[in-house]
Amino acid sequence: MHTNGRPEVHVILVSPRNPLNIGAVARAMSNFGFFSLRLVQPYDYAFTEARSAVGATELLHAAQVFPTLAEAVADCELVVGTSSGDNRDLRIPLVRLEQGAQRVRGTSGKTALVFGCEKSGLNNDDLSHCHYLLRIPSRPEHPSMNLGQAVAITLYELIRDGEELPVAEETPQLATAETLQRLENFFVQSLQESGYTLSTAITEQLRRMIRRLELPPHDAVVWLGMMRQILWKLQNNRE
Amino acid sequence: MHTNGRPEVHVILVSPRNPLNIGAVARAMSNFGFFSLRLVQPYDYAFTEARSAVGATELLHAAQVFPTLAEAVADCELVVGTSSGDNRDLRIPLVRLEQGAQRVRGTSGKTALVFGCEKSGLNNDDLSHCHYLLRIPSRPEHPSMNLGQAVAITLYELIRDGEELPVAEETPQLATAETLQRLENFFVQSLQESGYTLSTAITEQLRRMIRRLELPPHDAVVWLGMMRQILWKLQNNRE
Repeated sequence: MHTNGRPEVHVILVSPRNPLNIGAVARAMSNFGFFSLRLVQPYDYAFTEARSAVGATELLHAAQVFPTLAEAVADCELVVGTSSGDNRDLRIPLVRLEQGAQRVRGTSGKTALVFGCEKSGLNNDDLSHCHYLLRIPSRPEHPSMNLGQAVAITLYELIRDGEELPVAEETPQLATAETLQRLENFFVQSLQESGYTLSTAITEQLRRMIRRLELPPHDAVVWLGMMRQILWKLQNNRE
Repeated sequence: MHTNGRPEVHVILVSPRNPLNIGAVARAMSNFGFFSLRLVQPYDYAFTEARSAVGATELLHAAQVFPTLAEAVADCELVVGTSSGDNRDLRIPLVRLEQGAQRVRGTSGKTALVFGCEKSGLNNDDLSHCHYLLRIPSRPEHPSMNLGQAVAITLYELIRDGEELPVAEETPQLATAETLQRLENFFVQSLQESGYTLSTAITEQLRRMIRRLELPPHDAVVWLGMMRQILWKLQNNRE
């Protein structure tokens, strides 16, 4: 639901391990009026415990579980990861929370806010699904935050100055993650047909590059059509 | 210490009960560069547990314990309490965090930030020590926040947009027109080889779409390599 002028945000936790953290995330979401929680491969024990805790919120019971991050973000237009800032080698824009949140606020479509597991954060495959990464401006000497606190701060940043806030200039509508996934599949298959050597690293790079394109929905349709044709020809010629 | 242009803040917890919360408070303080923690009549068990936890920060070991709030705030110029907003009968100004934090930032002397116990918050006697109260803008239907999260958000509000100059998203460097033209050529040729009907209008659309991609130079090189390979295969298969 797009209520109170709030961006439509899905909070996504990848492989959370600690039931207390899951509970804390749900509580902060309820405090700030965000109700869609999605879990990717949660540790069974953690999820069960969190749900059975006294005071577990309704939204925790309504939380959806997905086998992969790709499926969890499929209906989202904007996929925003979080990082404590040590992924500098990746070619994904890393933006301070204050600036990055403005962009989320200005998005009219669904946004996924993705948080990695407590120990290791998001891995390279997870990151390759993200359009950009948010960084909470913590001290460089101690950047890594508690999961429940990181989610609370990020959501607070989205709602602070609430009522008075002038809506940021509208960001253009973007193709959904599902569409981008299809485009990626056409590319991967075309490259395979062409004998291009596709390592895992190259596949992840391709995914990041496609996310970075920020395709408007109409363009995405045209690209899909073009790549489908190229792929068809490659496959057809083979025989 | 008054370092890095940060206000000199003492975080004061009144009668905290849960060792995990005390630990979470200490962690958030360290994340955001606040190092003075004071506890007023903590539950013995909670404080002992929190200090002996794995990863307990140095500042937790350096935390000071006071028998009364009056003594804990004695050296502070500004005493700021926190409330979820249900103390309206009190004659103490209740200010939204966004505004209240500005005043803390502008204070040159020591400031006490006072948080009540998990169950009941600050009592009337505690409140009487406060110049004003901060309220985190949570939902009226679920205003009460977890202690560790409330402290984290309050400290974040004090440091956000701070020194470390807002690294506005750098305007990314883009591939040259010449590179884009080469990419366009590869695409056009691949489409022709595939039997895709390329009218003038479609060709122009393709060009606009490629320009809209705003490709970083490094990505453009990878795309060129991929498209070159696909085109090569299409041409090679033909024979």
